[in-house]
Amino acid sequence: MRLFTIALMVSAAALGQRPPRQVDTLVSPEVHADRRVTFRLRAPEAHNVTVRGEWMKAPEKLAKDESGVWSITLGPVEPDVYSYSFTVDGVQTVDPRNPQVKLGVRSSNTSVLEVKGEKPLAWDVQNVPHGAVEFRWYASKAVGTTRRFAVYTPPGYDPRGSARYPVLYLLHGSGDDEGSWVWYGRANLIFDNLLAEKKMRPMIVVMPFGHATPPNDYSPASRGRNTSLFEEDLIGDVLPAVEAAYRVEKGPKNRAIAGLSMGGAQSLHVGLKHLDTFGAIGAFSSGGNLDQIHPLLANAKGKLSVFWIGCGEEDNLLPASEKLVGELEQLGVKHIWRKTAGAHTWRVWRRYLAEVAPLLFRGT
Amino acid sequence: MRLFTIALMVSAAALGQRPPRQVDTLVSPEVHADRRVTFRLRAPEAHNVTVRGEWMKAPEKLAKDESGVWSITLGPVEPDVYSYSFTVDGVQTVDPRNPQVKLGVRSSNTSVLEVKGEKPLAWDVQNVPHGAVEFRWYASKAVGTTRRFAVYTPPGYDPRGSARYPVLYLLHGSGDDEGSWVWYGRANLIFDNLLAEKKMRPMIVVMPFGHATPPNDYSPASRGRNTSLFEEDLIGDVLPAVEAAYRVEKGPKNRAIAGLSMGGAQSLHVGLKHLDTFGAIGAFSSGGNLDQIHPLLANAKGKLSVFWIGCGEEDNLLPASEKLVGELEQLGVKHIWRKTAGAHTWRVWRRYLAEVAPLLFRGT
Repeated sequence: MRLFTIALMVSAAALGQRPPRQVDTLVSPEVHADRRVTFRLRAPEAHNVTVRGEWMKAPEKLAKDESGVWSITLGPVEPDVYSYSFTVDGVQTVDPRNPQVKLGVRSSNTSVLEVKGEKPLAWDVQNVPHGAVEFRWYASKAVGTTRRFAVYTPPGYDPRGSARYPVLYLLHGSGDDEGSWVWYGRANLIFDNLLAEKKMRPMIVVMPFGHATPPNDYSPASRGRNTSLFEEDLIGDVLPAVEAAYRVEKGPKNRAIAGLSMGGAQSLHVGLKHLDTFGAIGAFSSGGNLDQIHPLLANAKGKLSVFWIGCGEEDNLLPASEKLVGELEQLGVKHIWRKTAGAHTWRVWRRYLAEVAPLLFRGT
Repeated sequence: MRLFTIALMVSAAALGQRPPRQVDTLVSPEVHADRRVTFRLRAPEAHNVTVRGEWMKAPEKLAKDESGVWSITLGPVEPDVYSYSFTVDGVQTVDPRNPQVKLGVRSSNTSVLEVKGEKPLAWDVQNVPHGAVEFRWYASKAVGTTRRFAVYTPPGYDPRGSARYPVLYLLHGSGDDEGSWVWYGRANLIFDNLLAEKKMRPMIVVMPFGHATPPNDYSPASRGRNTSLFEEDLIGDVLPAVEAAYRVEKGPKNRAIAGLSMGGAQSLHVGLKHLDTFGAIGAFSSGGNLDQIHPLLANAKGKLSVFWIGCGEEDNLLPASEKLVGELEQLGVKHIWRKTAGAHTWRVWRRYLAEVAPLLFRGT
């Protein structure tokens, strides 16, 4: 009862900064010391409340108490960062008491659960030097709108210094935006931690916005146009802006491109078409029509320092990656193929990034 | 019917990047050409759905059609950026079809509606040069945790150049975080637009995280401790980090502090205690126990180039600002007092920022 205290009136004086009003102090999610997790929703009028998380095989029903608070305790849950949703009388939505939302381009029905372990994970905030993430607004000539890209600069990056850095272009998936690799993927923290352990080279990481056509237009025409417009935006707008603003090393040896799902397909398309620009490619759980890139595969022979392909065993897109890998083997194009545990989720992609970043920019 | 198409199966090929699955193409909110707005929620099992927006006096009920989609058309709505929520069978939550969420530190139950007018508003994306916003992670000695602050650098800011810039420290409210002035307040776009019109001096704007104690602890002890810990964090951690990393002008003539609600009270506390550091103060709809700052008011006489106080007529906190202004008049401390239309909302604070930024750093 202590934790899901009923709504109480708090005076302006006690509140310290807001007018008198009702505040709800219900806690959800609550992660217990044994890594069980309690989810709570105040919904006296609701008839049916379920929770479904990235770690669960099926939704579970919450139970209502006499005060109208629904709750369930699940787990223990393995340490990680997960997405989950409530479904309230048929409506899938966020956990409204949880300020952490998984943002995206099409909906806002997913919250974020973080379960810490005894040992920090590769994407946990640790007591190490931290890089910064800059969001840049730009008028894209290719797309014709004002958009943003994000840029990670490593700890110690000094725009006035003499050091120059290689650049990884890191692409998101179809549901995401340019901030997803940071806010949900924790890419910057993965880099901070790898750098603190001297496991990767200091690099600048550019996270462009991958949608150049409306994200809700699923027609093949729009999707095809998205790939070519995104290519134009990345090569013609983003890359020159990055190279003008940051202390970068140029040339294919110093540029890599990697991405997940839609961004994996884009990395393959753009990377293989621009082997004079990118010298390393990472394709994480790639989606889309990979047939279009097959004619480009032979060109990659001897050109890429890293050609990394990964997909989870439970991912519906696994056959596309396996087909790609089969063709690379036939053509004798050097690559790394990692069939791993996992489905089409960020739990897989954080791990892929932590595995791929250390391989990049290691010389010829 | 065209617009709230029923869920449809999209094949991997048509989708272009994702495994086969159900996609929902329901549009909400839909802003019509005449500025009426239609809100929609697919909820066949729900019994009662209402919408409440920042522009509305009371919630309105949505009506359910035969396909289980609830909807209502409201307005015309005056051009602006607004927050709104759905309440589904008693549960206040986001509009799950709207990717734009108003993020905060305590909950995630609010979506964002943007209604454009014929003429752009001060915070609309316009075809002007854009600044950038950088998020910096840092280990706060004062607070003992790793936190973030955000920094706006104006268009043309060159870390390798010779120009130096004055700095505005811009504080958020009790429900917000260090990103709120950017993602919901559109502060960067306000600056971009004012700079394009040459209405303000180019400046660096630092947006720290204002919570130094747990945001859900409303006890007076915690709130008081928050003010002093935040002061310590800002002066001891954030300010030196900013001045080491960016090309700033130093001294009180070149530093201002302003904020809304809790951040207004913090600006008064920290600004008036550090008149050797800050030469201008802005207090927007300030909350909290302003009695504590009254002993400091007399010291401000002749010290501040700008001492700006504003509050909306419909804001419950108006008496606190009026009392403050009365004391400044009695003490003969120069200030600007603006009692404006509006309540305790961001609609007011965006306008205040657009009014105050042009006044800053204009010389003695």
